[in-house]
Amino acid sequence: MPTVKKRPSAQVINYGNKYYLVDCGEGTQVQLRKQKISLLKINHIFISHLHGDHYFGLIGLVNSMHLLGRTKELNIYAPKGMTAIIDVQLNAANARLNYKIIYHELTEKQSVCIYDEKGLEIHTIPLKHRIYTNGFLFKEKPLLRKMKQEKIAYYEIPHYKINDIKEGADFIDKNGEVIPNTHLTFPPAPSLSYAYCSDTAYKEDIVPLLSNVDALYHEATFLENEKDLAKKTFHSTVRQAAAIANKSKASALYIGHFSARYTTEHYAQFLQEAKEVFEQTKIANEGDIIALRP
Amino acid sequence: MPTVKKRPSAQVINYGNKYYLVDCGEGTQVQLRKQKISLLKINHIFISHLHGDHYFGLIGLVNSMHLLGRTKELNIYAPKGMTAIIDVQLNAANARLNYKIIYHELTEKQSVCIYDEKGLEIHTIPLKHRIYTNGFLFKEKPLLRKMKQEKIAYYEIPHYKINDIKEGADFIDKNGEVIPNTHLTFPPAPSLSYAYCSDTAYKEDIVPLLSNVDALYHEATFLENEKDLAKKTFHSTVRQAAAIANKSKASALYIGHFSARYTTEHYAQFLQEAKEVFEQTKIANEGDIIALRP
Repeated sequence: MPTVKKRPSAQVINYGNKYYLVDCGEGTQVQLRKQKISLLKINHIFISHLHGDHYFGLIGLVNSMHLLGRTKELNIYAPKGMTAIIDVQLNAANARLNYKIIYHELTEKQSVCIYDEKGLEIHTIPLKHRIYTNGFLFKEKPLLRKMKQEKIAYYEIPHYKINDIKEGADFIDKNGEVIPNTHLTFPPAPSLSYAYCSDTAYKEDIVPLLSNVDALYHEATFLENEKDLAKKTFHSTVRQAAAIANKSKASALYIGHFSARYTTEHYAQFLQEAKEVFEQTKIANEGDIIALRP
Repeated sequence: MPTVKKRPSAQVINYGNKYYLVDCGEGTQVQLRKQKISLLKINHIFISHLHGDHYFGLIGLVNSMHLLGRTKELNIYAPKGMTAIIDVQLNAANARLNYKIIYHELTEKQSVCIYDEKGLEIHTIPLKHRIYTNGFLFKEKPLLRKMKQEKIAYYEIPHYKINDIKEGADFIDKNGEVIPNTHLTFPPAPSLSYAYCSDTAYKEDIVPLLSNVDALYHEATFLENEKDLAKKTFHSTVRQAAAIANKSKASALYIGHFSARYTTEHYAQFLQEAKEVFEQTKIANEGDIIALRP
């Protein structure tokens, strides 16, 4: 529930100068402005599920993009039902957008790849909530290997071969000798990944999907003493979030989506309960910017 | 379009300890909290038209009222179409509210009385916009006349007669003589009225409805030099707003709904252009509280 101090869910993933919006609670467009993120730079929006705290801001964002003169297509990945919700409101206003929305209505119960462009894949993470819900896994594709610069001159490697070698090819020099790739290159920087998991009950079978994730956002609606309520409402306790991070061998866990019953005064307790299970836990504060690759 | 500095339309009318919400742009529920107005005190919501800047916050408010434990009926007065917009979103969430919404879908093209309770009437003001739009006129009913206290003892007026006399009845004393009401009472305080007119092109035929209104809020989307654009988009210039106030013999005009092209630096010009036509003009600033009866 939005209050003066707490806004509903929305995150932006910035990769390769592209901006991906995940969830869009009421007021998200104003939060984007506060963060100086141009509304028009967002071309892909991912909605986890059709509870209002995760999408009530979408229609306003769609409308503002129109008012700002957008002409570029907008992709919306959301559970089936979102198209009707947007359409009924555009029709009521007798409005025709200046740009096209491409709806990707999600219905799969298994993890599927829903986005695959140069450098980046995005997969759904099937979650367990009161209604159909997906998390989203952002996976950087393997990066290019790095050339050992001195080898280029030494073996007289022509410019047009460089990219193949960075992708792993061996090189045949002027004497017909095969120079193995590992002799010419350093291994690439590790590929990064980020997983967004909200809202969900404890669901251990997502662990293989999250294996070695660099950063995991996992909802932690309740403290441990409300374990029964968490189960009943299909949410997680903070210990359960930490257990998923631990089993996934995540590098870092960010927790949020705390119940309205809690205030910032409870953050220490959330962290304490989490860290008993998974040390690298942090609170996901509003406005935080987290760099996975500094 | 909501920005960090400007929020979309919403006003609260407080009369007799009741709170009436007029329009509900995105973020209104948070603005209500900032103004310390309990969401649960609002039992009647009036939506002028189905453009997003006037209602995108409604579904979130409806949802939060549910989360806050509301059980009391909520009345929504809005153009036909609002029921479907709310329902498609409640259905998508598989949600059932703990309280009942009573929809009053408006379709009349003439002014109609849509609310009539002790002390207060609310009438629609048919406006002229790109889609079906109503303003709302809040009219206090005639107040009771005030007893001249010394007459009660002098004529030995029994207690149970007092209310009739306040309502205008004459009194027959113990000698059978008719004491005229004007001899026993002072005239009542004048009844107050408030009119909300947004969004609309210049529409002179609403003037009789607004006759002698104590406060008029009228949209003033453009300055005079954008008169053609105002006409084309079915909005008003500030001079046109002032002309309506002038012809209506309003006591005060509040202007707002300025186009996104303007900033607070233009307020002086808005006021200047308005005051050339109607002196008692003020800017309707966010968060302003205006007392009609101090």
